[in-house]
Amino acid sequence: MRYAKESLKNQIPYHSKNITEGIILNANESPFPPKKELLNYLSDVVKTASFNRYPDTDCLKLREAIAKFYQVGVDNVCCGVGSDQLLDSLFRSTISNEYVLICNPSFSMYSEYAKLSNAKAIYAPFNEDLTYNVDYILDSIKKYDPKITFICTPNNPTGATIKRADLLKIINATDNIVVIDEAYAEFADESFIDLAKEYANVIIFRTFSKAYGLAGMRVGYAISSKDNIDLINLTKAPYNLSTFTQEAAWFVINNTDLYENDIANLKKYRDELYLELQKLNIEVYPSEANFLFMYFDEKVYNHLLEKLIYVRVIKFNNKAYYRVNIGTAEENVELLKAIKEAL
Amino acid sequence: MRYAKESLKNQIPYHSKNITEGIILNANESPFPPKKELLNYLSDVVKTASFNRYPDTDCLKLREAIAKFYQVGVDNVCCGVGSDQLLDSLFRSTISNEYVLICNPSFSMYSEYAKLSNAKAIYAPFNEDLTYNVDYILDSIKKYDPKITFICTPNNPTGATIKRADLLKIINATDNIVVIDEAYAEFADESFIDLAKEYANVIIFRTFSKAYGLAGMRVGYAISSKDNIDLINLTKAPYNLSTFTQEAAWFVINNTDLYENDIANLKKYRDELYLELQKLNIEVYPSEANFLFMYFDEKVYNHLLEKLIYVRVIKFNNKAYYRVNIGTAEENVELLKAIKEAL
Repeated sequence: MRYAKESLKNQIPYHSKNITEGIILNANESPFPPKKELLNYLSDVVKTASFNRYPDTDCLKLREAIAKFYQVGVDNVCCGVGSDQLLDSLFRSTISNEYVLICNPSFSMYSEYAKLSNAKAIYAPFNEDLTYNVDYILDSIKKYDPKITFICTPNNPTGATIKRADLLKIINATDNIVVIDEAYAEFADESFIDLAKEYANVIIFRTFSKAYGLAGMRVGYAISSKDNIDLINLTKAPYNLSTFTQEAAWFVINNTDLYENDIANLKKYRDELYLELQKLNIEVYPSEANFLFMYFDEKVYNHLLEKLIYVRVIKFNNKAYYRVNIGTAEENVELLKAIKEAL
Repeated sequence: MRYAKESLKNQIPYHSKNITEGIILNANESPFPPKKELLNYLSDVVKTASFNRYPDTDCLKLREAIAKFYQVGVDNVCCGVGSDQLLDSLFRSTISNEYVLICNPSFSMYSEYAKLSNAKAIYAPFNEDLTYNVDYILDSIKKYDPKITFICTPNNPTGATIKRADLLKIINATDNIVVIDEAYAEFADESFIDLAKEYANVIIFRTFSKAYGLAGMRVGYAISSKDNIDLINLTKAPYNLSTFTQEAAWFVINNTDLYENDIANLKKYRDELYLELQKLNIEVYPSEANFLFMYFDEKVYNHLLEKLIYVRVIKFNNKAYYRVNIGTAEENVELLKAIKEAL
């Protein structure tokens, strides 16, 4: 690209094929269609919203609802185009060329935005069983004093969660920012939202894209001290969320009970699938998210593709692992059947 | 803010009060409610869309429709959360600390994103009558070789348009990028889209937020060579536009005839209002946009506020000017009446 700046000369634009048919288990989406209650509400929004007017740049109605849900102040919440945008803004507001600490493997956008912000990324490996290597993280914090430490829990793509005691060690080991990315926390046994209220250096990221089935709307949020929320807002684009998206998320956060059954089912399916895969001697890791991280031969992957079953390839340790999100009961049966056929 | 990077220590987060009542003439929005044909289409979208799935990150259906509309290739188009996001991405993809040329006054986000990207901004003043000072721009290009030159035409907030011959001089004076921001081109006598097809260094920005009344959806687009579109995509966040937004814009670009009458009316109202204001000896500037740039005493502004008529204050040349967008016929009558009362 003729006009690209030097540091991006070898970068390739992000592209992902839009898959709309088959069994789609590659994006950690909810497999369930939108709730009819949500659709009824959105039908009214379509009839009454002033789409000719800019959306509320402050997302006040939505932020108030999120604040109420978590019993925090409205100034402790900000909303973005997915949590991606908040992540990006956090980098832009804080980083010139400082160190940041990222676990490996973890959510790929940490590295992407680190690159864009000229951050120096330190990568902390997991233990061999893919549990958090807390000593490594603590040593790295001591050595590099990273401006931001990212803990994704449950971790994408491995599903591992960090223990509360370990997380507290990390938070107390640094005066700098600790991001706790809880994109999948609705599927986990424990949430760490309370730590954002207690520790001034903690920022929680959450999303409506996974458990609450709004991936198509693109809305995430951060919870932290007012000072940290102001920090993110410093570089966040104004008018970032459309009126419609704000309304959809507002309805969902006020009606989370509608989703409890789906979440419980996905957890049950996940645990059942985990056991079935273990029976097949597939290398699969414990997960508290809506996906499982596993290794199988490429021929299995190719057979899944033939059956139009889509899973995510994760290159890690010079091997191709697979991240497979939990589908409907029927989809999980099809998945297991296809894996068995190819073994 | 404790964790803000040094260059942003004195920055204040963007905030704008969400005004929903009164006569709103401060954001260059369309005063007309959404078309019933659009709402019918969107009602079907609500009923059928898979909101639990991520949107198409490539916005292919929408880009194909835009490409067809302008008779360019689909690779010559990219879509953003307003043209703001494309502007931001262009800066991030090209600028380390190079010069950029911005006219003054012009769209405020050029300066904002220049700051965020550490660009060195050169400001080109307008002539005293607020027509483009083309010699100044050409001299600045010669002197500073800016990586990007921004020409907003019709210019926000002044309404001035640049002459085609002058624009060609600028484009031919530099090998670097010339952005032609046509956010308001639907209200102007001439469009310069054709220059994006002819010149490899031209990028056109357009939006659905103004003439097409989709401010609440947040969608803009860029038209340029494939190389320049790839350049913007290098740093543009993936999955940036929600499914619903993509569908709304798709409907509009396929049904622009529905908006012709509104656009013609706004142009007529604009020209009538201009004449009326001149009769009142108000300093007002010719405009080819959906707004007028003017100067009046602060007591007029205060009276408008009392009447819940909202206009935009533009600080320029150590004076407070006002940018007033054209409303419905009734709103324009109210505006003129209120101005007369306060003179």
